[in-house]
Amino acid sequence: MSDAQEKTRGRRSRRGEGRSAEPGQNAYLKTPFISRNLPTYDILSEESLEQIEATAERIMAEIGIEFRDDPEVVELFRAAGAQVTDLTAESWNLKFAPGMIRQILSTAPARFTQVARNPANTVEIGGDAMVFAPSYGSPFVMDLDKGRRYGTIADFENFVKLAQMSPNLHHSGGTICEPTDVAVNKRHLDMVYAHMRYSDRAFLGSITAPERAEDSIEMCRILFGADFVDQNCVIMGNFNTTSPMVMDGVTTRGIRIYAAAGQGSIHLPFLLGGAVSPLTTAGAVAQCLAESMVSCAITQLVRPGSPAVLGSFISSMSLRTGSPTFGTPEPALGSLAMGQLARRLQLPLRCAGNFSTSKLPDGQAMQQAMMSMMSAVQCGANFILHSAGFLDGLLSMSYEKFILDADLCGALHAYLKGFEVNEDTLGFEALAEGGPGQHLFATQHTLRHYQSAYWDSAMDDQQPWETWHEQGGVDAATRANSRWKAQLASYQAPDLDPGTDEALREFITKTKTAMPDAWY
Amino acid sequence: MSDAQEKTRGRRSRRGEGRSAEPGQNAYLKTPFISRNLPTYDILSEESLEQIEATAERIMAEIGIEFRDDPEVVELFRAAGAQVTDLTAESWNLKFAPGMIRQILSTAPARFTQVARNPANTVEIGGDAMVFAPSYGSPFVMDLDKGRRYGTIADFENFVKLAQMSPNLHHSGGTICEPTDVAVNKRHLDMVYAHMRYSDRAFLGSITAPERAEDSIEMCRILFGADFVDQNCVIMGNFNTTSPMVMDGVTTRGIRIYAAAGQGSIHLPFLLGGAVSPLTTAGAVAQCLAESMVSCAITQLVRPGSPAVLGSFISSMSLRTGSPTFGTPEPALGSLAMGQLARRLQLPLRCAGNFSTSKLPDGQAMQQAMMSMMSAVQCGANFILHSAGFLDGLLSMSYEKFILDADLCGALHAYLKGFEVNEDTLGFEALAEGGPGQHLFATQHTLRHYQSAYWDSAMDDQQPWETWHEQGGVDAATRANSRWKAQLASYQAPDLDPGTDEALREFITKTKTAMPDAWY
Repeated sequence: MSDAQEKTRGRRSRRGEGRSAEPGQNAYLKTPFISRNLPTYDILSEESLEQIEATAERIMAEIGIEFRDDPEVVELFRAAGAQVTDLTAESWNLKFAPGMIRQILSTAPARFTQVARNPANTVEIGGDAMVFAPSYGSPFVMDLDKGRRYGTIADFENFVKLAQMSPNLHHSGGTICEPTDVAVNKRHLDMVYAHMRYSDRAFLGSITAPERAEDSIEMCRILFGADFVDQNCVIMGNFNTTSPMVMDGVTTRGIRIYAAAGQGSIHLPFLLGGAVSPLTTAGAVAQCLAESMVSCAITQLVRPGSPAVLGSFISSMSLRTGSPTFGTPEPALGSLAMGQLARRLQLPLRCAGNFSTSKLPDGQAMQQAMMSMMSAVQCGANFILHSAGFLDGLLSMSYEKFILDADLCGALHAYLKGFEVNEDTLGFEALAEGGPGQHLFATQHTLRHYQSAYWDSAMDDQQPWETWHEQGGVDAATRANSRWKAQLASYQAPDLDPGTDEALREFITKTKTAMPDAWY
Repeated sequence: MSDAQEKTRGRRSRRGEGRSAEPGQNAYLKTPFISRNLPTYDILSEESLEQIEATAERIMAEIGIEFRDDPEVVELFRAAGAQVTDLTAESWNLKFAPGMIRQILSTAPARFTQVARNPANTVEIGGDAMVFAPSYGSPFVMDLDKGRRYGTIADFENFVKLAQMSPNLHHSGGTICEPTDVAVNKRHLDMVYAHMRYSDRAFLGSITAPERAEDSIEMCRILFGADFVDQNCVIMGNFNTTSPMVMDGVTTRGIRIYAAAGQGSIHLPFLLGGAVSPLTTAGAVAQCLAESMVSCAITQLVRPGSPAVLGSFISSMSLRTGSPTFGTPEPALGSLAMGQLARRLQLPLRCAGNFSTSKLPDGQAMQQAMMSMMSAVQCGANFILHSAGFLDGLLSMSYEKFILDADLCGALHAYLKGFEVNEDTLGFEALAEGGPGQHLFATQHTLRHYQSAYWDSAMDDQQPWETWHEQGGVDAATRANSRWKAQLASYQAPDLDPGTDEALREFITKTKTAMPDAWY
């Protein structure tokens, strides 16, 4: 056999192995979560970081945080040394001496594990680990066929299934869309069940009322066993402060419930610059840090060592209309700063995502998404909640954007792998083999790296224009529309023990029956 | 007057001033070029950088570069110490001892000025300066109305006008599209004239034949005066190596012509991984560095101190079809590495841009564009040639994508400004003014920063869904389609001295008349 024949044979056999038949699978990139190989993009100097931290301490010490409707959390902080001022019978201003909250947070883990019911899908949150989860909290859903309408539990289940099928997401998320056809006081049961039944990944529970938080955790006890839940994080709650500098009782009670159960919680100020925070980025970041630190600290007072995730949701504003804007440059810079601050605090960080104000899965949508998402991955965020589906300023969950975003998340797997520099990857021998003017198609180096050199998108059209045109000349959104339908048509639910399934259903039926529907 | 009245009055009067009537103008961001305030995103360690540099030196010293059809450039390198091996009567292999090319490059400026005919538009290239120019070299143009067709001189002029009208581009570029309705041997005259007549920004000249390079510079002598041209860079040529490791005579003669005239040149390997370079990023970067360094070195042998720009155009490949792909993660990482290497070499860098393989200005187009463009701005590239219009793997120049890209370039102005951390921007007083639970709309801090806090896009829809829907519910591409037409309809040419204009036209007529049309 000649060298040329050898090369051809080698090339053919290598092409067949390893790479999956379908684009977008990229088996060599598949992991339960990303371990970031790229360094973070650090934009602030030590001095600037110290100034922001000092301002956060001043906010906590001199302005304080107002707590409402939860005397227990106030007592916890009072016992820890906070200066409490009664404002009304049900509201208090709490001030924290410089360093006090940072000290309380020293017991929080820098990195922790959230166990999935399929152990292969268990994720780590913190350090160089990075988890992508679907978008969260939209009342509406959208697709190209039916446009925008209120979300239903059927939509919710569809998105859980689509997320489960994506090799580029790691987590099932939480309130992917609001299932508005289910009573407000009961929908959490159906949402948690959908995550448990149609996905075998980790997920988020309800936080909209203390009893709904309890129900979410109770369902986990049925799924995982009560002892296991007490010793492991299997669910998390995503909590919002009421910016500026207020924490309401529903939130703090929810945080206490998750922490007491040893479960995880995310602590997210929603900062719309110019409205509830300074519209200068430095100020928004300082306020974000202060609010999220105080919120995180509750967990450590309830149960030291329970997992808490620092959160950042910095939004800009249209100066023409006052509307919040997403996927703009200033919040992207804020995310990069928050990454640095979170590492100094040794807490995991949630921030940014595939944000957009667009109403369609169009060029604006993906350009804005990238501006925000790149900041998340480059700042070293550990949990990126709005990784797929976000449109319409978070008011709508888009089927097509979900597909495009999930594919983009795959590209980010390749990006975050970085690249190795060693004798093999430097490829000197490959260049020397043919020398000047000779192509490298058949070099051993090319054959060796052919399977895994480049991200292989499931959605991007890379064909010649003529081929693309002959095949209908459709845009990315139209391809995404076909894909989500095909995905749902081929979905297969992961196995779930029938006894467990029955126990979950019984719990839901019993809980639903015990109360009338409420729609607020 | 009460404090509240005072605030309201202050707010109203401040809102009126400073901000332009039209979105996307952002007067506070308008500059002839960007001075980057953000640090670069450095992803490689010192050790990795040294390994890449050592491999580049080995390529130059052990494999060598093949030169064709230009004995003069071979003699220049021979005199400088290169080891020359005759391959044929018209081709030579040149090897360069380690460090030799780096030494030759030590006379090249780290930063230089390209003068525009309007001095307000003069740009700097190198250091923390960054220049955005339109895309370059597509044979086809596209718009939503007429689809894809060959470019004409009318299209070319349209794009020069659109670039001139954008506050977010800094440079008129070069062969924005091929004017295929003009003879190949004459079109450079019409292109250079269009840049001179319809723009008052800096631009690139022809490189497709030595006499066309001469003509381009001669037209500059008419526009600027011969002495001025000899002492200032007023035009640049964008030269491609013939990878792997070949430089043809048309290219090297062109480089010598620009350098001899004291004009700038860009030295760009086109590296399609797996075809003409290793498909591992480390290898592609090492080869890119070697090829571009040798190409740049020609300028210093011809005229030490003449401006030369290191270039990087690293492309990935579809492993399914062998087609080049753009806007993918691996070349983005390559750009980040090239930024580090260019700074170590103290040369300005051109790399990346708003790349895409999409055939429409859709979600794929803008997602891929961002992946590439973010790498360019984050690596500290100094000249970003394909900043607007790139679609179809560079085969087509898109009117709509040009508009979307130019708007994105505006967002990048805001991004690259970074943010300041000081007592004012930290905004503690603004938060303290109202305290917990109080919005910041009317604080002095908000009023003071209101005009310039956030990027104000000309293209992104930030309205509530209902308003957007009532107004027709169109996507970003459709808005861009309306905008380029409105822009062209309102275009006004910058003044040009009638005598100079006449002299340019006479030169063109004389040159065209002196030769028959050639179409190859």
